[in-house]
Amino acid sequence: MITIPDRVRSVAMPPIDALNTHMSRMNAEGGDVISLGQSVPFFGPPHQMLDAVRDAIDNFGPRLHTYGPDAGIPELRHALARKLREFNRVSFDPDTQLVVTPGSNQAFMVAMTTILEQGDEVAIASPYYFNHHMAIELCGGVVREIQLREEDGFQMTMEDVEEALTERTRAVVIISPNNPTGTVYRAEEIATITRELTERGIYIICDDAYEVFCYDGARHTSVAGLSGYVDNVITLGSLSKTFGMTGWRIGYIAASAELCRQALKVQDAMAICAPIISQVAATAALEQMPEYPLSMISELDERRRVLEAALDKIPVLHWNKTDGALFAMVGADVAGEDRELAWELLDRAQVLTVPGSAFGAQWGGFLRISYGCSPRDRYEEALSRLVEYFERL
Amino acid sequence: MITIPDRVRSVAMPPIDALNTHMSRMNAEGGDVISLGQSVPFFGPPHQMLDAVRDAIDNFGPRLHTYGPDAGIPELRHALARKLREFNRVSFDPDTQLVVTPGSNQAFMVAMTTILEQGDEVAIASPYYFNHHMAIELCGGVVREIQLREEDGFQMTMEDVEEALTERTRAVVIISPNNPTGTVYRAEEIATITRELTERGIYIICDDAYEVFCYDGARHTSVAGLSGYVDNVITLGSLSKTFGMTGWRIGYIAASAELCRQALKVQDAMAICAPIISQVAATAALEQMPEYPLSMISELDERRRVLEAALDKIPVLHWNKTDGALFAMVGADVAGEDRELAWELLDRAQVLTVPGSAFGAQWGGFLRISYGCSPRDRYEEALSRLVEYFERL
Repeated sequence: MITIPDRVRSVAMPPIDALNTHMSRMNAEGGDVISLGQSVPFFGPPHQMLDAVRDAIDNFGPRLHTYGPDAGIPELRHALARKLREFNRVSFDPDTQLVVTPGSNQAFMVAMTTILEQGDEVAIASPYYFNHHMAIELCGGVVREIQLREEDGFQMTMEDVEEALTERTRAVVIISPNNPTGTVYRAEEIATITRELTERGIYIICDDAYEVFCYDGARHTSVAGLSGYVDNVITLGSLSKTFGMTGWRIGYIAASAELCRQALKVQDAMAICAPIISQVAATAALEQMPEYPLSMISELDERRRVLEAALDKIPVLHWNKTDGALFAMVGADVAGEDRELAWELLDRAQVLTVPGSAFGAQWGGFLRISYGCSPRDRYEEALSRLVEYFERL
Repeated sequence: MITIPDRVRSVAMPPIDALNTHMSRMNAEGGDVISLGQSVPFFGPPHQMLDAVRDAIDNFGPRLHTYGPDAGIPELRHALARKLREFNRVSFDPDTQLVVTPGSNQAFMVAMTTILEQGDEVAIASPYYFNHHMAIELCGGVVREIQLREEDGFQMTMEDVEEALTERTRAVVIISPNNPTGTVYRAEEIATITRELTERGIYIICDDAYEVFCYDGARHTSVAGLSGYVDNVITLGSLSKTFGMTGWRIGYIAASAELCRQALKVQDAMAICAPIISQVAATAALEQMPEYPLSMISELDERRRVLEAALDKIPVLHWNKTDGALFAMVGADVAGEDRELAWELLDRAQVLTVPGSAFGAQWGGFLRISYGCSPRDRYEEALSRLVEYFERL
C-alpha cells in the first residue's frame, strides 16, 4: 500500500542511530559497551549556561514559551555576530545575515533546500559526513564524491575538487576540521578552491562545526573571511560540539542577506524557529563563556596522543595522524570478516566505533574512532580493550 | 552572483514573520499594537512542566546535553502513545510508530520529504495553512487547492476533494479543527474521504494541532482511528497549541512502522533529534497534566462568543461562525483599498490580524482573527478598537 520514492528508499538508515540502539540493548542486557562512536564531546555545557536557563524559566516571561523570530532571537544573533567577528574575523550583520537553526544539520538541509534545483550536483569530500550525503539526496540533489586519499592525510586540493565538478555542480562542501577524518585543510588550498569556485559561480558550503578543535599548530580557515569571493559562500556553524550541547540543537547559517532572506522561507516552513529555551542557553554560553571551547583543546589533544600510542600497539590498525576535530579515520588490515570490523568490535570487545562504510562504500577497511566522546577513564579502558582484542586475534 | 531556484524564489516571504516584525518596530517606536494574529494560545505551559525542566537541569545528567534517539526519548514516545490511546482512541507502538519532531511544521516537512516524488501533487483545502503550501513547493511538490466556500462554513466534502485529484495526487491534507477557518469537519465526511482516498492509494496527512479545541458540541475526528484505511494515514500532532508551548518546538508523526522507518532517515538528516530539554518538558506536561488543554476550552469558547458579539457591531465584517481552533476567517466588504485591510488595521487601529491573501490569493477579502492569542483584556481592547475603527470609516 505504502509507496516511498526511490530517492528516500535508497538512502541507508542512519548508521549512528542503529549502532547506538544496538549498544543500548547490549547495555540493558548487562553489557558494558564504551562508545568511541558518536561525535559528542566528553564535556557538557558550562554551568553558566544552565544558570541562565534556570533564570530564564523564572524571569524570561511569555517570550520563552512562544515562537520567536524565524531568524532567531536578537540576543543570540548579536552574540553569534560577535563570535564570528572575534573568533572567525568575519563580519556578519546580525539583522540580515544570520539565521539560527535547530542544529547545524538543519542549517545544511535549509541551505540545500534553498539553493538546489532537482538534479543539481553537490560535491563532497569522500570519506564523507553521511548526514550531508543523505540530505543532498533527500533534497533531490545528486552527490558527487571528491576522492581523497589516506596517504595524503585526506587533504583536499583544487585538483581533487576539479575531478568532481560538472556542468551541473551547484555547490561544493568544505568541512574543516573534517568529519570523519579530522583533517584540517591547508589555508592556501582553501583559498585556491574558493577563488576557482567563485569564478565559476559555484556555492561553497562551509561546515565549521569543529572550528575550534585544531592541534599541533593547525588552524581553521574561515572561508567567509577570505578575499575574492562574492556571495557564494554559505557558512554553517554549530554550538553543539564547541559548547558540549548537542542535545540542545543550536546551529546557524551565516551568509549574504539575499541568501538568508530566501533561506528564511525554508526555515519558516521547516522549523518556524529554533527552540527559544535553547536559544537563550546558547546566548548565555557565547556571552558569558566565549573561551570555553578553547579550554577543551589540551585535553582533546592529549587524548589524541593517547590514541596514537594505543594504535602503535596494534599492528593491523594504522592512523595517518590528523590534527583536528575529535576523530581518527583508522585503517584496518583485517580481511575475511563476514561483516564489518566495527560490528565485531561492538559485540566482542564491547567498544563502539563507526564502520568506515558509513562514510562511503570504498571505506569499508576503516573505522572512525572518536577520541572525544567518552569520559577519560572509559576512553582509555576502551583503547585497552581494542589492544587486547587485536592481540588475541 | 547568487542563483536561487524559482521553486524557492517564487515562494512568498512568511507572512506572520513580516507582520510580527512590523508590529515590533511599531511598538519599539512607542506604539501599542495588540496581536490578533498569530496562532499562539494566551496561556503558557503548566507550571509542572517548568518544574520538571528545573529538575532535569539539576538531575537529568549528561543525557540532557547530548543527542537522543532520532525518534525521540522513550519516555516521550510512551507518553504520546498514551495520549493517542486515551484522547484519540488510537493505538500506536511507541517503539516503531512514533517520531518526535521539533514542532509539527517539521513533522509536515519530514512527511513531505518522505513521500513526495518531484512533481507529485498534494491537495490542500483553500483557504490553506500557508506553511503547508510553502513546504509542499519547497519539497518539489505541486499544490492543488481544494476550493471551499464560506457559505458552507468552509466544510470539506469528498466532492470538493474529488475536483482537486489528478493522476499525480500523492496526498490530501486534512486539518480539523482547521487553520485558518476554525472549521471542524464532519465525522461522516472525513470517513467518506478516508475510504475513497484509501481505495485509490492516496496518502492522508492529518494535522491534528488543534484537536482539543472544539466548541458547541463539535468533535475532532482522529482519522487513524477510523476503520477501513490501510497504512496511508499519517497523523501529525503538536503540543504547541494544546500546552501553550509553541516556543519549545515539539510535534510528532504517528504512522505505520514502515513510514516511520523511512521518515527517520529524513529526520536524521534534517534534525537528528528534537531538543532533549523540550522533550523532557513535553513528557512532563503529558504525564502530569493530561487534562490541561481541556481546561482551556471554556475560556476560548467565551472569547469566541465575545468575537461574535463584536463582529455583530461591525456591518462590513461578517463571520460564518465556526466551532474549533482559535481562529475566525472573517469576510470584509471593504473595497477600494490600495493595500489589504490587515495592513490598514495594523497601522491605523494598532490591531494585528492576518491578511486573507496569506491563505490563498482569492481570500484577499478576508482577515484571519485569532481570538486565542492575547490576554483577555488586551483581546477585548483590540476588538473595541476594531469596532471604533469601522465606525469612523
